[in-house]
Amino acid sequence: MKEQKRIRDYGVIIGRMIPGAKNAITDVRGVKVGHYTLKNGAIQTGVTAILPHNGNLFQEKVMAAVHVINGFGKSIGTVQIEELGTIETPIILTNTLSVGTVGDALVEFMLEHNEDIGITTGTVNPVVCECNDGYLNDIRGRHVKKEHVLSAIQRAEEEFQEGDVGAGTGMSCYGLKGGIGTASRIISLGKKDYTLGVLVLSNFGRKEDLMIDGVKADRMIKEVQREADNLEKGSVIIIVATDIPLTERQLKRILKRTSVALSRTGSYVGNGSGDIALGFTTAHRIKHYEKSPIVTVEMLNENEIDEVFRAVAEATEEAILNSMICAERTVGRAGHTRASLKEYIHEIVNG
Amino acid sequence: MKEQKRIRDYGVIIGRMIPGAKNAITDVRGVKVGHYTLKNGAIQTGVTAILPHNGNLFQEKVMAAVHVINGFGKSIGTVQIEELGTIETPIILTNTLSVGTVGDALVEFMLEHNEDIGITTGTVNPVVCECNDGYLNDIRGRHVKKEHVLSAIQRAEEEFQEGDVGAGTGMSCYGLKGGIGTASRIISLGKKDYTLGVLVLSNFGRKEDLMIDGVKADRMIKEVQREADNLEKGSVIIIVATDIPLTERQLKRILKRTSVALSRTGSYVGNGSGDIALGFTTAHRIKHYEKSPIVTVEMLNENEIDEVFRAVAEATEEAILNSMICAERTVGRAGHTRASLKEYIHEIVNG
Amino acid sequence: MKEQKRIRDYGVIIGRMIPGAKNAITDVRGVKVGHYTLKNGAIQTGVTAILPHNGNLFQEKVMAAVHVINGFGKSIGTVQIEELGTIETPIILTNTLSVGTVGDALVEFMLEHNEDIGITTGTVNPVVCECNDGYLNDIRGRHVKKEHVLSAIQRAEEEFQEGDVGAGTGMSCYGLKGGIGTASRIISLGKKDYTLGVLVLSNFGRKEDLMIDGVKADRMIKEVQREADNLEKGSVIIIVATDIPLTERQLKRILKRTSVALSRTGSYVGNGSGDIALGFTTAHRIKHYEKSPIVTVEMLNENEIDEVFRAVAEATEEAILNSMICAERTVGRAGHTRASLKEYIHEIVNG
Amino acid sequence: MKEQKRIRDYGVIIGRMIPGAKNAITDVRGVKVGHYTLKNGAIQTGVTAILPHNGNLFQEKVMAAVHVINGFGKSIGTVQIEELGTIETPIILTNTLSVGTVGDALVEFMLEHNEDIGITTGTVNPVVCECNDGYLNDIRGRHVKKEHVLSAIQRAEEEFQEGDVGAGTGMSCYGLKGGIGTASRIISLGKKDYTLGVLVLSNFGRKEDLMIDGVKADRMIKEVQREADNLEKGSVIIIVATDIPLTERQLKRILKRTSVALSRTGSYVGNGSGDIALGFTTAHRIKHYEKSPIVTVEMLNENEIDEVFRAVAEATEEAILNSMICAERTVGRAGHTRASLKEYIHEIVNG
Repeated sequence: MKEQKRIRDYGVIIGRMIPGAKNAITDVRGVKVGHYTLKNGAIQTGVTAILPHNGNLFQEKVMAAVHVINGFGKSIGTVQIEELGTIETPIILTNTLSVGTVGDALVEFMLEHNEDIGITTGTVNPVVCECNDGYLNDIRGRHVKKEHVLSAIQRAEEEFQEGDVGAGTGMSCYGLKGGIGTASRIISLGKKDYTLGVLVLSNFGRKEDLMIDGVKADRMIKEVQREADNLEKGSVIIIVATDIPLTERQLKRILKRTSVALSRTGSYVGNGSGDIALGFTTAHRIKHYEKSPIVTVEMLNENEIDEVFRAVAEATEEAILNSMICAERTVGRAGHTRASLKEYIHEIVNG
Repeated sequence: MKEQKRIRDYGVIIGRMIPGAKNAITDVRGVKVGHYTLKNGAIQTGVTAILPHNGNLFQEKVMAAVHVINGFGKSIGTVQIEELGTIETPIILTNTLSVGTVGDALVEFMLEHNEDIGITTGTVNPVVCECNDGYLNDIRGRHVKKEHVLSAIQRAEEEFQEGDVGAGTGMSCYGLKGGIGTASRIISLGKKDYTLGVLVLSNFGRKEDLMIDGVKADRMIKEVQREADNLEKGSVIIIVATDIPLTERQLKRILKRTSVALSRTGSYVGNGSGDIALGFTTAHRIKHYEKSPIVTVEMLNENEIDEVFRAVAEATEEAILNSMICAERTVGRAGHTRASLKEYIHEIVNG
Repeated sequence: MKEQKRIRDYGVIIGRMIPGAKNAITDVRGVKVGHYTLKNGAIQTGVTAILPHNGNLFQEKVMAAVHVINGFGKSIGTVQIEELGTIETPIILTNTLSVGTVGDALVEFMLEHNEDIGITTGTVNPVVCECNDGYLNDIRGRHVKKEHVLSAIQRAEEEFQEGDVGAGTGMSCYGLKGGIGTASRIISLGKKDYTLGVLVLSNFGRKEDLMIDGVKADRMIKEVQREADNLEKGSVIIIVATDIPLTERQLKRILKRTSVALSRTGSYVGNGSGDIALGFTTAHRIKHYEKSPIVTVEMLNENEIDEVFRAVAEATEEAILNSMICAERTVGRAGHTRASLKEYIHEIVNG
Repeated sequence: MKEQKRIRDYGVIIGRMIPGAKNAITDVRGVKVGHYTLKNGAIQTGVTAILPHNGNLFQEKVMAAVHVINGFGKSIGTVQIEELGTIETPIILTNTLSVGTVGDALVEFMLEHNEDIGITTGTVNPVVCECNDGYLNDIRGRHVKKEHVLSAIQRAEEEFQEGDVGAGTGMSCYGLKGGIGTASRIISLGKKDYTLGVLVLSNFGRKEDLMIDGVKADRMIKEVQREADNLEKGSVIIIVATDIPLTERQLKRILKRTSVALSRTGSYVGNGSGDIALGFTTAHRIKHYEKSPIVTVEMLNENEIDEVFRAVAEATEEAILNSMICAERTVGRAGHTRASLKEYIHEIVNG
């Protein structure tokens, strides 16, 4: 999107399924994404907002689920999603040490738009996910402010940038520059086409482990072998959106298949990584003030779920590669540098 | 039921909600229960079968969930229920060391009624839950045979006995005789009445801890204080049936509230206990050969779930007390004896 | 403690086990508790800090576990505790909408004391638990500030107040005033005495359901029956500390038994409640920069765990009652009022 | 082992780490494996037994954990492993519909060797894992008998066959012949070498998805593309043994990384698959009649766990490939045929 050259443009086609029109999470109708980027010397960080729909999310929640791939992370809001199966705020991504500020900003945003919260009804569950961008970013400076969160929400639209933008500004992936990436797949069920889209905030993996569509980078590039880090650190946040009707159990099963993409790009799901998959379906809205005691919903025939598993694995793998290939070489805190995958992609793919 | 004197008949009314017509799990339309009892000297054991509906359960599954309260147990079938959210066989209760035989018998029963299993479709997930009746029963003898399982299934009906029957024959509860007990509650949602029913196989607790509707037995009966065991052993299996439409997530939340009843009757949920709650809703049937890729279902408005939580806690507490009060004093293996709660109930309640 | 009249002083003795010297979580050596209270008209809120030990918690973590009883809550830090089995910051309690601010303050506190965080090592996992005090407190005003968190940490000591103090200032429990409560139990293992202590932030339950040591309040007090709310809302946070050596699995099993205390005081573990149990053992310290690849630890012989289960259930039940009986009648936001249990205790206990 | 040609012998080297002497699960000292094979026309099934150590497993249990990758399966014993963190019987693998018979046989074996079970102590938790071999085997015939289980246990030794033997006799993997495979890795911690070994029972995946060390089979072999099945069915059981001292939490984290190997060989972890990882450490023995209330154990420094994650991923991937490459072309029930990977390996690897 946004005229960036993506992994498909280099001839790397992940899997067999067909992407949506934008090959992005925003192919799921109603979903929007906005960034706020802080990129200035040692400050390499930001905020990315994902809006599940355009309406008032507190009043009309989306059905949701969460799957913790590896819990070495500080994301907030997951406990209630697990219990109640709903998301009721925009989903905000940022750096690890800014979760408090961002959570507070998100609460403020929700209070402004919902006068009932804390007065005539209960509280609100802010969803903020994070990765540690401390290698490139002065993370201790906690440069993300309340207004950046509000800006990211306001700027949300269907077209958005990938790579070193928003929350992805300072992230690293497989020892190269990571960040925001997205992809989507179309799933035909009966006579109808549905869409599943993925957005990742990538910040994980060791350079020597990178694998692109089966090709192992360390067999292609000598430099990669030399620069290997000692430990697999960082994290990845994977946001899955779909318009397929699902129960929370089904959604959770789908989220579990995102880990396929981590393995396929080379990861061993290292210890020091907070890997969280968060998903929602836009097929129903769960009303905060629902009056009917019983509500009618739809769910997927479980016999058809394999194709959705494949879709989420493919889209997540492609989103990770997009997050890398769209990111520019970045010099940040203390002169720390991450090269772009662009610099190596020809060597790896044609090597 | 079956002209047994139950806990209500002694003036003990658990909670505030109204029971169904039979105050039994079979108040949920379509549910049936059958026993096979082995009661002869050192042999004090048996089988209890719960049928979620009258049809072919493999072809038309019920939506289900499971909650492990304490996993020191050997019940089988729970992993698949957790993953797929369905039950596709009768639920069979028996003693711990007979699970293998009973599971095999249940597979045989399913194969006989479903020629496709293992040929043109996959296999089948037998659900067998157990408690250890080794104090009264020669459990090492594994006296339960295949034909006993088939008999219990065939004998299933809406009226059934409680206490020392079927799988409950050799069970102990709070140092007294335990076994099979049941109860139900009516829940009004909108203009419609729904039913939630519980059946327990009780085999847990220390005598000194027994509490009946807030009255602590050890403050009433001196003998109770003297006979205290050292450890809380045994198990309880809690089967919950309802006709309320629920997603698996909602059903699981409801199952979690069964533990309230363990605490209310005096238990600390001891280490050596395999406490499993298993539930299903008859509101939908999940077809094995469903053709439609998307199916319409209903779910409960979550804002109404508190009354269902109360219902399951009340019904489980009453079912446990029924399992004890309906059981007769039993002498089993090695002269081991369990008195009946009947012998103490007046002293406790009026003490 | 602190010369407050506690539930034992009214003749209510929960369970059979012996409390520690202070009958408080601080009976576990090294544990300290501090409050910051905001109590002025519509502002009824605050902060409570629990320090697992006196040293640098990031450098020397405590082994920990978490158990979500009901996940309708916004506590943070639990995902990483689950994954890594450690707590590395003070545990802070506050109101729901202040979690962001408090989390940020806790991060700042940790950064100040650990120059390596975010530079030469990874980030830090702040643990902040919350209940919704919106009935008495102007929760939308988010009156808790960074300096209140730092004050609560600094003020931490072995003696501390219970009731309407710190995070407990604006909390309600069973329709009466709730807040902070504590209790402890001694467990003899071999020739050595160990201690298990509990601190609760109580904010749950309906008045009509309150039960005190088996006595149901609504059978004693007519007013209670009339004032019943429609739904069970609120939350409870349960912090468990012990010096018994445990693995994370054992600690989690112990935490699960805290729910016994919710049932014993009358709750059905309602839908709208964020009930979290968090526990740690001070028996080992897990070093951030551990050099030895293999470390020696101790664990409890599982055959002895039943007594610990009983201890945690008893201490939690008593802590809940202490949180109520130590709290004063409070008038807060919009004239909302919560009476104190003190006003009813004689009627209930002697009724 | 046993003079079979394994995947390394074809030049396929998975990962970077060094295997143990036998490159087998039995490189972990004390572990033994035995098979009983039923191979005759439509009968293509059997039993494989894994013995964690040579002693009395009920008296001296091993610390264990379980991770359900996908729960569409009928394995038994997992609930108690999850709760108590121990395995107390040999681990038996077989076909899905024989779990009951095999469980009963295993109980009988344990009763024979332990006169206390069910008399003076509690019961025993048989661990039986399964895959569905119904494509090649007359699974409805349930041809596995009690004596086959006892034979497999008795035959257990350090050297054992891979491929279409024991429980692997009738299994299929990626549309080819699957079965039993094994591999191991050495992990240096401080000055000491530890071993992690894996044994798989492979029965999953679609032919068109097979990937061998990054090479996608369907790009190499036309036939593969044509024969594609519609759904990913079957299952995989992954047994992990190690002598590294671990807590149950650590062991579970390690088991989660086995799914990397499923993805790396091409799977999307399909719906119809019962994928279970079960692991134990031989570093400690947990005594059934432990007398000391506190026991000393060791655990891994978590900072060192990444290398163990890599080891388990590598060993599992290699074990899956060994299970295929060691298996012979098999014709079974109804003339159903599975080719051997041997027939394609040169084309794939050198293609």
